[in-house]
Amino acid sequence: MSDMPKSVSINEEGPREGFQIERGAIPTARKIELIDALSKTGLTHMQIVSFVDPKRVPGMADAEQVVQGITPNPAVDYTGLWLNEKGLERAIATGRLKIEGRIAMCASEKFLKRNNNKSFAEQEAYNRRVLDTYAQLGIPVNRGSIMAAFGCNFEGDINPATVVKMVDRIFAIAAEHGVEIEALSLADTMAWATPASVKRILGAVRGRYPDLRVSLHLHDTRGMGIANAYAGLEMGVDMYDASVAGLGGCPFAGHKGAAGNVCTEDLVFMCEEMGIATGIDLDRLLGCARLAEEIVGHPLPGSVKLGGSLGKLRASARRTDAERTAS
Amino acid sequence: MSDMPKSVSINEEGPREGFQIERGAIPTARKIELIDALSKTGLTHMQIVSFVDPKRVPGMADAEQVVQGITPNPAVDYTGLWLNEKGLERAIATGRLKIEGRIAMCASEKFLKRNNNKSFAEQEAYNRRVLDTYAQLGIPVNRGSIMAAFGCNFEGDINPATVVKMVDRIFAIAAEHGVEIEALSLADTMAWATPASVKRILGAVRGRYPDLRVSLHLHDTRGMGIANAYAGLEMGVDMYDASVAGLGGCPFAGHKGAAGNVCTEDLVFMCEEMGIATGIDLDRLLGCARLAEEIVGHPLPGSVKLGGSLGKLRASARRTDAERTAS
Repeated sequence: MSDMPKSVSINEEGPREGFQIERGAIPTARKIELIDALSKTGLTHMQIVSFVDPKRVPGMADAEQVVQGITPNPAVDYTGLWLNEKGLERAIATGRLKIEGRIAMCASEKFLKRNNNKSFAEQEAYNRRVLDTYAQLGIPVNRGSIMAAFGCNFEGDINPATVVKMVDRIFAIAAEHGVEIEALSLADTMAWATPASVKRILGAVRGRYPDLRVSLHLHDTRGMGIANAYAGLEMGVDMYDASVAGLGGCPFAGHKGAAGNVCTEDLVFMCEEMGIATGIDLDRLLGCARLAEEIVGHPLPGSVKLGGSLGKLRASARRTDAERTAS
Repeated sequence: MSDMPKSVSINEEGPREGFQIERGAIPTARKIELIDALSKTGLTHMQIVSFVDPKRVPGMADAEQVVQGITPNPAVDYTGLWLNEKGLERAIATGRLKIEGRIAMCASEKFLKRNNNKSFAEQEAYNRRVLDTYAQLGIPVNRGSIMAAFGCNFEGDINPATVVKMVDRIFAIAAEHGVEIEALSLADTMAWATPASVKRILGAVRGRYPDLRVSLHLHDTRGMGIANAYAGLEMGVDMYDASVAGLGGCPFAGHKGAAGNVCTEDLVFMCEEMGIATGIDLDRLLGCARLAEEIVGHPLPGSVKLGGSLGKLRASARRTDAERTAS
């Protein structure tokens, strides 16, 4: 276990993932309430909105109002998601978000074709165009990302060699544009990963890029999220996307298919219990998880919000011992 | 990962764990329906009832009727749980259960005091008495078990040395009675374990008893069940208790506190996806998980029953490739 990191950085995506998928309108004020509560837990990175077509994603039509409504904590980097130039313009226009570009690839050409109507070649061309835009706007780019890195509903298993080749392409395109890639985000978009495949893919990438910092984006659709994150920790991964209470597709509310990201508080619980610092106050975060549940109005999948943390139990066990010794 | 087992044996405890905790009466016929469905999945070990005081556990008052009502599959060992001689007599009287004794210990004296009003010394005396009873009745004993092996709500963390000492005591008592211990069950009764503590405790036990077969009983109250099972696999553990659909205390039905055991179908999914044979037909098991949910009448925590297995998706991806090649 020598590879285990001493601390991890968690990027909270619950507000963005959750509120874009929930049925029924969630009042803007309540979104802001959750984001502001999360900003007081010790989290330093939060993706809070997406700038997408309000006709396709009505839950994000109020993205600008959400960003304007929050009380920013200077210790937190707030980000938004965009999928095209129009979304990027909207994100910039808020004036309150950290704007960072990335070279975004997808390891499954079938998924890419289906979702973006692009071939691998067209994906590269698009990235080149976007990099030009970032350069013109002075937006820093230091990350690559690969969707469907662990498997695809339409393509099946993804070969580790395919992922490594994709990382090669990211570095090649970055080099063409004088951009330096410092971190790589691997996304288990359709929840195909197991701890074994996390290790296999990470091992392949590490074999070629030993110093590249990796971030994992792990969907919990098949209940493997925490185990996959643990496999990531064993491989030294120290950056994780996560979603408070498991927001982002709730299996208990009739949303079939994709569940949210690995649950933030369950991930924090595991890390802290294993001596890996997250910088996050777990009990405050549990309060946010319960708030998220109240806001969406139905049970959300996270476990520790029900099972409770261990801090108070430990303290009370110690107190009993102390009383016994004193008496 | 050289320690990973090639196959695992899963002991299904859903019917016993689940039906004893569910609120409201579940008709005997429906319990039998689930047990019979589970017996056709490839499972070879199932704990189906407990013989306990019907006043304290009304959900198990029909234990005898359940056992008499099932259609036994000769490939399956059906077992029951008992906590005292009276329960043992009832289990034997059914004539249909596999009766096996065990030396049952608890690693937390505070928990033991609270739940059984026994000290460690009294626990040993009780085990000696029970071993005499087993000997008189010709009941084989080949297993030891340790409750609260990973932590306790009243005692806090459990020191690995405490667990090893308890295993020593199990072997000592077994030797006194001419009994041979072949397997040790470690239970995370109050869901304190993390993958790190699973490895720590297993490592300590293995250090002293390298050839002892270990079984894990992992409650999922804090969402660590699958990750803890994965840590067990990494340590070579090839026996797990599990509960279909996560039956056994449902966080989504207002049962605060303990959740059920790690979910059987999620565990089978992880193992099979990692190339570890379970002998279980996952799709049939998913049918049982949905049946369990229908029977209890509220959502149960398992994930794969919602997210789906990958077999059909893989087959369909291959089909598409074949069509493309053919055209």
